[in-house]
Formats: sequence, C-alpha cells, structure tokens
Amino acid sequence: MPIKGLTLLSVASVFTLVSAAFAAGHLTQDQQRAMDARNAHMTLYSFNLGKVGAMVQDRVPYDADVASAAAANLAALAAIDEAGYWVEGTDTSIEGSRAKPEIWADMAGFEAEQVKLATATAAFAAVAGDGLDAMKAGFGPVGQSCSSCHESYRAPRE
Amino acid sequence: MPIKGLTLLSVASVFTLVSAAFAAGHLTQDQQRAMDARNAHMTLYSFNLGKVGAMVQDRVPYDADVASAAAANLAALAAIDEAGYWVEGTDTSIEGSRAKPEIWADMAGFEAEQVKLATATAAFAAVAGDGLDAMKAGFGPVGQSCSSCHESYRAPRE
Repeated sequence: MPIKGLTLLSVASVFTLVSAAFAAGHLTQDQQRAMDARNAHMTLYSFNLGKVGAMVQDRVPYDADVASAAAANLAALAAIDEAGYWVEGTDTSIEGSRAKPEIWADMAGFEAEQVKLATATAAFAAVAGDGLDAMKAGFGPVGQSCSSCHESYRAPRE
Repeated sequence: MPIKGLTLLSVASVFTLVSAAFAAGHLTQDQQRAMDARNAHMTLYSFNLGKVGAMVQDRVPYDADVASAAAANLAALAAIDEAGYWVEGTDTSIEGSRAKPEIWADMAGFEAEQVKLATATAAFAAVAGDGLDAMKAGFGPVGQSCSSCHESYRAPRE
C-alpha cells in the first residue's frame, strides 16, 4: 500500500490539536470539525470577496486578472460539497456558532440558498474579467445571495 | 448599481474583527488576511482528507459517494488560485506562522509542489468512486504530495 501512515497520522494530529484548543471538550469531534470547516469556508469567501469588493467599491483600480481569479475562486468554493458541515447540535445554542436553528428546520430552503450562490458566482466568474462595469453587474447577485442567506440562516455577530 | 453597500461593509467588518482578535496589531491587514486564508485553506484540506483517510485506513466502511465528494473537494481546493497568500513577512518569524522562509527563497519549487498536489488530487477525484482499492491507490500520490511539501516548506508544530 503506497500510503504513508505518517501523513494521515499527522493530519489526524492537527485535527485533534486544533479542535482541542478551540472546543475545550464541549463538542464531539464531528461537531468541532464541522464548525471549523464552516468557518474556514467562510474565511475563504471573505478573502476573495475582499479582492473584488475593493474594485466594486472603487477603492482599488480594476484588474481583470485579479478579478477573474478571485471570482473563479468564489465559484469553486460555492461548488464545494458541504456534506458533514451541518452536524446536529451545532446551531446558535453552541458558543461560537452563528448558525441559526432555521438551517435544520428548513434544510431545503437553506440548500436553495447554496444553489443560488453557486449560480451567482459561476455567472460572476464568467464576466469578472470583462471590464469594471461588467464585473460590478455580475457581482450584484453574489452580494445579494450572501445577504439573503445570512439574513435567514446566520445570527448577527454578538 | 445593484450592489448592496451593507453587504460589502459587513464583509469588511468581519475581516476587521477577526483580524484584530488574532493579530493584536502586530501584522498589517494584508499579512493577517493572508495567514487567515492559508490556515482556512489547510483546514478545508484536513476536513476532506479526514473523510477519505478514515476509509484508506479501514476505520470506516468505504462509501463511493462520500469518497468521490471529498476527493472532488480536494481537487477544487488544490485548483484555487493562492494569489495574496504568500505576503512578505509572514514566515516563521511571525508568531503563529509555520511557513518556512524557503517558500519565498524558492517560490518556483513551492509552486511546483502546488502543481503536484493539483495533479494528484485531480487524478484521485477521477478514481475515488471506483472502489476501495482504486481509491487507496489514488490516494497515495495525494498523501505523498502533502508530505513532501510540508517537509520542505512547513515548519513542525511547536
């Protein structure tokens, strides 16, 4: 078998260390991993939204290559399968979670928001390199998708 | 213009809050965002590696759908453009960074490791649903890519 045992052991160790530091034993491993992954996913959305947002708001000059790469990243992130993210018991009743109980009460509606974001980011990626006006127009539905999902399914920061 | 100002403002606010909590003012905003994004990216690798790793190590039964989805996620993550991740001044001289100075001293070698991972994960995604043996064989080069890159470019956890 060509697998290095050490590699997987290392991955598992990192998980354990990070999870232990964060949860202090209040959550199961699956719950902690789910929250870590969700937060990481959001951080990568934010990182790439920051690049195009600065151009949309005219704070930095438009750069077709940067805009295209960031938009492609957003589309790739939105297409990632989120299986394992929405583990029971990880809603706002848990410290550090902003995931509203509405996610679990209305999973179909929540998944529809994910489809909306995937659609908006794919369309955005197709036009982000076509000039500032085209990029701004394509960004609109992306921002609206963020907003509508957060409004329904994410609690405000405390 | 169909952009909601509030949306971008919210994204920016989240950035600021997270960054401030983490860095306590020692890093520039670009440096902090880069480190946050890199760490988030690694967390998502780990999350998906954990799913397939459990099957590779025979700790959970093989599930073709789970394996395929996780492998596709790994390939998507490996294909994400990392522009903005490797900001100067964010190597191991910074608290919390395990990015060796070798990344900046040998960027071509580091990028070659990224290409190797993208190639390995794409090949893995193509076979992960074809049965346990095929998945194990496809996983080998992925694990080897993780190991070789970490050995050269990532410092051990302290």
